[in-house]
Amino acid sequence: MDNHITGRVRKAPENFIRAADVGKVFAEAKAGRRDFMRNAFATAAGAAASGAALAQAGEGDPNILELPAHSKGLGQPVAAEGYGKPSKYEANVQRRQSPGLTQTRQASVSFAPLQSLFGIVTPSGLHFERHHQGWWDIDPSKHRLMVNGMVKAAKVFTMDEIMRLPSVSRFHFIECGANTGMEWGNVAVPTVQYTHGMLSCSEFTGVPLITLLEMAGADLKKGRFVLAEGADGSSMTRTIPMELIESGEVIVAYGQNGEMLRPEQGYPLRLVVPGVQGVSWVKYLRRIEVGDAPYATKDEAVHYVDLMPDGQHRQYSSIQECKSVVTTPSGGQMLLDKGFYNITGLAWSGRGKVKRVDVSVDGGRNWRTARLEGPVMSKCLTRFNIDWVWNGEPCIIQSRAMDETGYVQPSYQQLRAVRGTRSIYHNNSIQSWAVQAGGEVVNVQLS
Amino acid sequence: MDNHITGRVRKAPENFIRAADVGKVFAEAKAGRRDFMRNAFATAAGAAASGAALAQAGEGDPNILELPAHSKGLGQPVAAEGYGKPSKYEANVQRRQSPGLTQTRQASVSFAPLQSLFGIVTPSGLHFERHHQGWWDIDPSKHRLMVNGMVKAAKVFTMDEIMRLPSVSRFHFIECGANTGMEWGNVAVPTVQYTHGMLSCSEFTGVPLITLLEMAGADLKKGRFVLAEGADGSSMTRTIPMELIESGEVIVAYGQNGEMLRPEQGYPLRLVVPGVQGVSWVKYLRRIEVGDAPYATKDEAVHYVDLMPDGQHRQYSSIQECKSVVTTPSGGQMLLDKGFYNITGLAWSGRGKVKRVDVSVDGGRNWRTARLEGPVMSKCLTRFNIDWVWNGEPCIIQSRAMDETGYVQPSYQQLRAVRGTRSIYHNNSIQSWAVQAGGEVVNVQLS
Repeated sequence: MDNHITGRVRKAPENFIRAADVGKVFAEAKAGRRDFMRNAFATAAGAAASGAALAQAGEGDPNILELPAHSKGLGQPVAAEGYGKPSKYEANVQRRQSPGLTQTRQASVSFAPLQSLFGIVTPSGLHFERHHQGWWDIDPSKHRLMVNGMVKAAKVFTMDEIMRLPSVSRFHFIECGANTGMEWGNVAVPTVQYTHGMLSCSEFTGVPLITLLEMAGADLKKGRFVLAEGADGSSMTRTIPMELIESGEVIVAYGQNGEMLRPEQGYPLRLVVPGVQGVSWVKYLRRIEVGDAPYATKDEAVHYVDLMPDGQHRQYSSIQECKSVVTTPSGGQMLLDKGFYNITGLAWSGRGKVKRVDVSVDGGRNWRTARLEGPVMSKCLTRFNIDWVWNGEPCIIQSRAMDETGYVQPSYQQLRAVRGTRSIYHNNSIQSWAVQAGGEVVNVQLS
Repeated sequence: MDNHITGRVRKAPENFIRAADVGKVFAEAKAGRRDFMRNAFATAAGAAASGAALAQAGEGDPNILELPAHSKGLGQPVAAEGYGKPSKYEANVQRRQSPGLTQTRQASVSFAPLQSLFGIVTPSGLHFERHHQGWWDIDPSKHRLMVNGMVKAAKVFTMDEIMRLPSVSRFHFIECGANTGMEWGNVAVPTVQYTHGMLSCSEFTGVPLITLLEMAGADLKKGRFVLAEGADGSSMTRTIPMELIESGEVIVAYGQNGEMLRPEQGYPLRLVVPGVQGVSWVKYLRRIEVGDAPYATKDEAVHYVDLMPDGQHRQYSSIQECKSVVTTPSGGQMLLDKGFYNITGLAWSGRGKVKRVDVSVDGGRNWRTARLEGPVMSKCLTRFNIDWVWNGEPCIIQSRAMDETGYVQPSYQQLRAVRGTRSIYHNNSIQSWAVQAGGEVVNVQLS
């Protein structure tokens, strides 16, 4: 490892995959692949463009390559399943609960498998979950949304009524305020799924909240705050400042990635508050109250606060600051060989568009600017890619994002200098992945 | 109906939902809703912001509104299912095979439920299907892609090797060339799912094909065409002109909407040819051959050709021209009441970005410009929305798209004047939906 850098490798707990086992599996796979490749090229040279050269590896005698069954037979019919599913070979790509993180699975988290995802859209079946009292599948024909408080006339909307109103569709990320929270406490978190997986991104469709407030005759002069309330047993309540709503960005959403919201995501109605931490995106939304002061509810006065070095709690720190993470290579993955790799990851900012992402492969001494995949959208994930040739030696991979306000994602040390070490929420510091000599990638904290 | 317009209502076959039945269900729903709304507002007036006012309709005594179970109990745990599913209340939102359209379900089509979708992303579980010999779930560790023909050295790639290369992620629509084909023949097609549902849109991730051609040392001077070949039993083969590949737009894709391709969509590898009809997006891609002339394969010489009025067949008409359709209100839907509606739909062009969409509610006499949801991307679906107040009288709703080349979507009559009436493919004409006095929406052809 670069001698000016000292890194502490975080050991994974015993119940995670062990590097030695991974190495063994990969060694076998590599041996098998090399054999096949030799055969395939030999045949290709002899038989040129023959279809037989494209036979699958591992079927029958390796010296007599045969067409696989799928090139000869009749496949599955259309609409074989009412609603399609991923390949059986992708069964391990799942959202997962962190072992032992919570006492119950109803007040818990499942993490999105960022290491296996591409682009910026999170498939709804893999979207991270955060429930405070479990999820429900609420009958939309019975669900209602009330708008009350400082309004001319309180109104109750049915789903039909909401879905007839002018709608908007927008791509936004959602990140739990506690995402990457374990890193504050030096807890061993071996993979990007568990370090950063309370992060997802979707196309949301719904009605701007300002439309509903105008229909109810909200007093926008005195009523500078809104209380959003969910219908599930946790009675989730959060204050939203009226400026965000007046910008038109806050949406009462029923659609996500082209279809109705999923039950785990608040079906049939969720508040979408772009750039703000996930807890304010109230699920199963049943009530919006207009008021003249923050509500100081249990979920914002006691929970979701940041303990600062001076012992004070910081409240209402809702905006998710600019952040990024390399998703491949990342902890728990293994580089099979020296040579070319595409380093890829995600960047985002709760304050607007990502402007630039730099990547270092030497623990932060040198940085190169990555390529951003378009379109780069405000308060949305941005995918970055950069070329890299691994020389087979240990190294440390990092990404550092900058947003359009000029804010630069801080190092772990910079963040701690301001925030101390006792927070849970709002850790947006640079993530470091160490590639070890054997190709194993592990989570490290640079000191 | 407006007296200057004569429209022929297409009668739906008997096995489709009957308007009379729909009307009855809606009438009952409306009656029930009105009762509930009266109660809800009465309670709201009395109890103001009380949570009780937000109780569900239909639980217990309607005069004593009670909190529903989901506001009192413990819900479902996180990661209750490895891969999440839609709400049980959305079970009817499915892709569907058109009754009697094909002889077998292996060489057939299932249509995406456009009338139920929002925004531009098609959920992968609802993406339309078109198989020529059924779909397969191919083991990616055994799948290979060969690049051969006019190249320095033929190459065979494993999935691992492809996934290590520089990747791109882009949003594009895919439309079957036969989409809206039934409209040529005056066949009764009652819903937008069946008229336009061979259309979907995803974020695709993969390697630009040009990268693989360069690795194999393709002769780009003489080799101006490529043959793409699939590994399934249909041996799908299509010619792609090299200009498209040199633009960098053609992708060898493994990712779709953030995860690996679905088996029905060619897992683990599919050719993405933006703007070109779906048949050229070869699934289960196993071979790319570089050549100096179009290949005139069975799938482009005999199939997917357009029979012109002079009796000649037009071949290689691959680009999907500018097109749009209103998805709500659309055939089979029913307007419950007079009053405000959000008219919404989709527009797209195989030649670039959609520039403008106009909407008419009087059969094409007057047009208003709709609002386009951003970002407007090249060769991608664009969602449009426009306000409308229905006065309860019969009317005809249409949309007309224009792309950045200045091309304007033609009327049914304009298209037929050039193309005749005997085509199957490439019908991009304006779709007309008639709203009848009772609110029923039906497919009409204006004459």
